Amino acid sequence: MRLNVALVLLFREIFCYNYTTKFIDVPLDHFSFTNNATFKLKYLINDSFWIDDGPIFFYTGNEGAVETFAENTGFIFDIAPTFNALIVFAEHRYYGATLPFGNASFSNPGHLGFLTSSQALADYVYLINHLQTTHQRSEYLSKVPVVAFGGSYGGMLAAWLRMKYPASVVGAIAASAPIWQFQGLTPCENFNRIVSNVYKTAVDDDCSAPIQKSWKIIRNITANDDGKAWLTKAWKLCSPLKSSDIDDLLEWYSEILVNMAMVNYPYPTKFLAPLPAFPVRNFCYKLTGEKITDDKSLVTAIGNALEIYTNFTKATKCNNINQTAASLGEEGWDFQACTEMIMPMCSDDNDMFENQSWDFKKYSDKCYTKWGVRQTNAELPILEYGGKDITAASNIVFSNGLLDPWSSGGVLSNISSTVSSVIIPEGAHHLDLRGENRNDPKSVIEARQFHVSSIRKWITDFYYSRDKNYFKKSIFFNKITYTHGNNI
Amino acid sequence: MRLNVALVLLFREIFCYNYTTKFIDVPLDHFSFTNNATFKLKYLINDSFWIDDGPIFFYTGNEGAVETFAENTGFIFDIAPTFNALIVFAEHRYYGATLPFGNASFSNPGHLGFLTSSQALADYVYLINHLQTTHQRSEYLSKVPVVAFGGSYGGMLAAWLRMKYPASVVGAIAASAPIWQFQGLTPCENFNRIVSNVYKTAVDDDCSAPIQKSWKIIRNITANDDGKAWLTKAWKLCSPLKSSDIDDLLEWYSEILVNMAMVNYPYPTKFLAPLPAFPVRNFCYKLTGEKITDDKSLVTAIGNALEIYTNFTKATKCNNINQTAASLGEEGWDFQACTEMIMPMCSDDNDMFENQSWDFKKYSDKCYTKWGVRQTNAELPILEYGGKDITAASNIVFSNGLLDPWSSGGVLSNISSTVSSVIIPEGAHHLDLRGENRNDPKSVIEARQFHVSSIRKWITDFYYSRDKNYFKKSIFFNKITYTHGNNI
Repeated sequence: MRLNVALVLLFREIFCYNYTTKFIDVPLDHFSFTNNATFKLKYLINDSFWIDDGPIFFYTGNEGAVETFAENTGFIFDIAPTFNALIVFAEHRYYGATLPFGNASFSNPGHLGFLTSSQALADYVYLINHLQTTHQRSEYLSKVPVVAFGGSYGGMLAAWLRMKYPASVVGAIAASAPIWQFQGLTPCENFNRIVSNVYKTAVDDDCSAPIQKSWKIIRNITANDDGKAWLTKAWKLCSPLKSSDIDDLLEWYSEILVNMAMVNYPYPTKFLAPLPAFPVRNFCYKLTGEKITDDKSLVTAIGNALEIYTNFTKATKCNNINQTAASLGEEGWDFQACTEMIMPMCSDDNDMFENQSWDFKKYSDKCYTKWGVRQTNAELPILEYGGKDITAASNIVFSNGLLDPWSSGGVLSNISSTVSSVIIPEGAHHLDLRGENRNDPKSVIEARQFHVSSIRKWITDFYYSRDKNYFKKSIFFNKITYTHGNNI
Repeated sequence: MRLNVALVLLFREIFCYNYTTKFIDVPLDHFSFTNNATFKLKYLINDSFWIDDGPIFFYTGNEGAVETFAENTGFIFDIAPTFNALIVFAEHRYYGATLPFGNASFSNPGHLGFLTSSQALADYVYLINHLQTTHQRSEYLSKVPVVAFGGSYGGMLAAWLRMKYPASVVGAIAASAPIWQFQGLTPCENFNRIVSNVYKTAVDDDCSAPIQKSWKIIRNITANDDGKAWLTKAWKLCSPLKSSDIDDLLEWYSEILVNMAMVNYPYPTKFLAPLPAFPVRNFCYKLTGEKITDDKSLVTAIGNALEIYTNFTKATKCNNINQTAASLGEEGWDFQACTEMIMPMCSDDNDMFENQSWDFKKYSDKCYTKWGVRQTNAELPILEYGGKDITAASNIVFSNGLLDPWSSGGVLSNISSTVSSVIIPEGAHHLDLRGENRNDPKSVIEARQFHVSSIRKWITDFYYSRDKNYFKKSIFFNKITYTHGNNI
């Protein structure tokens, strides 16, 4: 049993997570002819499982260095051998090494303004076309089927890629893709209610209760200088707290709570931070296990419990309240969230967070101050991608874990016979895209089986419509089966 | 009988072709945040047939002042009363009065570069959203169904609008839309072969034969100054021919031949120029009726016959060889044809035109000289709109007249149960979008009936999916029937 696990991990190490890094020149602006600038878009490629005419599995990279997604999307590596697929992970413009203006990419709207989802999708179409034409090894026709995969914002991109460019991808696995987390589509309080519920039910004692109390207490304690100095020490902050830091401190704290819910996976991971299995449960055990007698002991207990997230490796010397997820490109996402990806969030007495209303005007003002771009329309993505009306789409699987706060903006029921929703009750944020693990709950194994059968149908339809006699000629399809890794 | 015709025409004059001109501020660049400029987009609106909750009939304007299209798209006015529809004709950016940089709109790529089909589609989505939210008069839900209509490039836009933004329009009537007239999709010689065939079969004598001969003869005659002076007079040119004008002269001549084929309607029209019924037949009667004894008499006969197109009103004093269709925005289209809408054309011995190969390098060079924009990829629209792979689309009717040269790039067979092709054997360029006429061939009447039944299905599906009980409540649908105008 144990040997099997070791062998599988070794096998993965050698064969699976390997990739070659490449770059392709893509147009900076796909939608105007005002300039002809190009930039180098990075992508990772693995052709070790690919045979002639096999499909391309294409991950639509999201807000971070693409390696992060490759290393946390084992599902694609797990199923690629079965499908004889070419694996490609594309890096999203303005993240990782894909900086159209190098170090000056974030310097002004003239540079940064090309950071939009539409441009990113067009990059991917451009790269797919390049792969189709240059990697062709087929004796048949030139095109091979391409399946899009993505998680979170990457899942939104995968779904939108299929909606907008159905000739480029035969289908999309859109995991934990909150395509409806926009104004007018989803109540702003839903997200934080789901987070709170995860904390409420993680262990026997309700650990959302002390958290709910804590906001006011922290504000009270840090209202004077002694309190700020005390909390700086108690929470091991890198810099002494100033009055102007308090909002940032609470945002850092609340982001960690959210992040732990997102990556509340049933085994240790390193996605947003190095973490144990079930980080929320661990946090809650630690918090509810401590003896809380007064305000300061509550805050101390929370600070200690947060170390589950901030210091699981025991290597963190102090906490920088301006960073919660080192692996993601926070500047780029902040710009996107300020311009196009405006996702209203709010809190009230029904959740464990500090009360906060959704004030678009204030949000827009803050964004303008930071980026010099004024957004007055919070519903841009609805115009661009159709909002709730996605009935004309086809060949998309939307999967959502019910432990995942982002399920608030997800597609939670089937749209049509070809646009499906898969629910993973025990799943956190795109757990289904991760590699097989002995601790996977049954629901995620079933979700992956559904993905595989969907992919098989999409690419079978593609080959068949390309060549009605394909299956008589091909040896390729004989071996497409999928056995999940429950037995390791 | 005659009285009926007069009454219908009077009725149309009073009720139908009336419209109010409006403007809306739309973003210059829908796909970046590098600037927040807006410009005034013109649209025509007629709400005289509109009742609460009726659909919007939206014409996706093409390369010219929008009035041209409103005045040559009587079909929409004819059927609007039956559907209680709001009529809107949107003007395409960089045409008519919709000039984002006013008089400086064409001055440099920094201004003109925002002239792309993607930006135009986004303009229409923006305007549709505005109409949906500000013209709402419904007791039901906020959205009413929108049907897109367009002819020629406007038909391409109507189809693409449905493909890219299916939440904005429930369906599209794409008349004579050559969405496949791009490199790699359609042989470049097809277009000119269709034109030639129209001239070959227009009258008993083959009038393509003298045309085919004429190119070399004109080049011979104009090789010396006497010949140039003679042809200047014979063809009533406004300016004395110079050697550098000869290519332009032949292009003007060939464009007129093409235009007459396009607007070879069975009754007098004023679309590209004031013309009699069946202009090609008239041209050919005149050409084949003249006595041709030598080269000069052939050229004279052609010059005289061309007056069908150039001087049907008898008001033209002389011919300007730089203009063939005053109603269209030729500069804007030239830029589009140089950058995105690159439609390869060529001629060989199998057509009546001067031999000309398709030389993309030469074409691209000429475009670069003219516009300062270098296009190296002739297949951009294929990446953007999917090329021949449009199977994922729905609710589009592609109609094509077989007399129309643009049918060469059209969709001539059904794609699926919801993407249909309608062939009009006796039809020229989007004849079906024109108002009813006693001279309409049966095939165009049937095409219009198909359009109406398609539109009825699309909007019925929309209302039904919005509200399952809609048809019990609504008085609106009782009256939707369509009787064609064959009886006037």
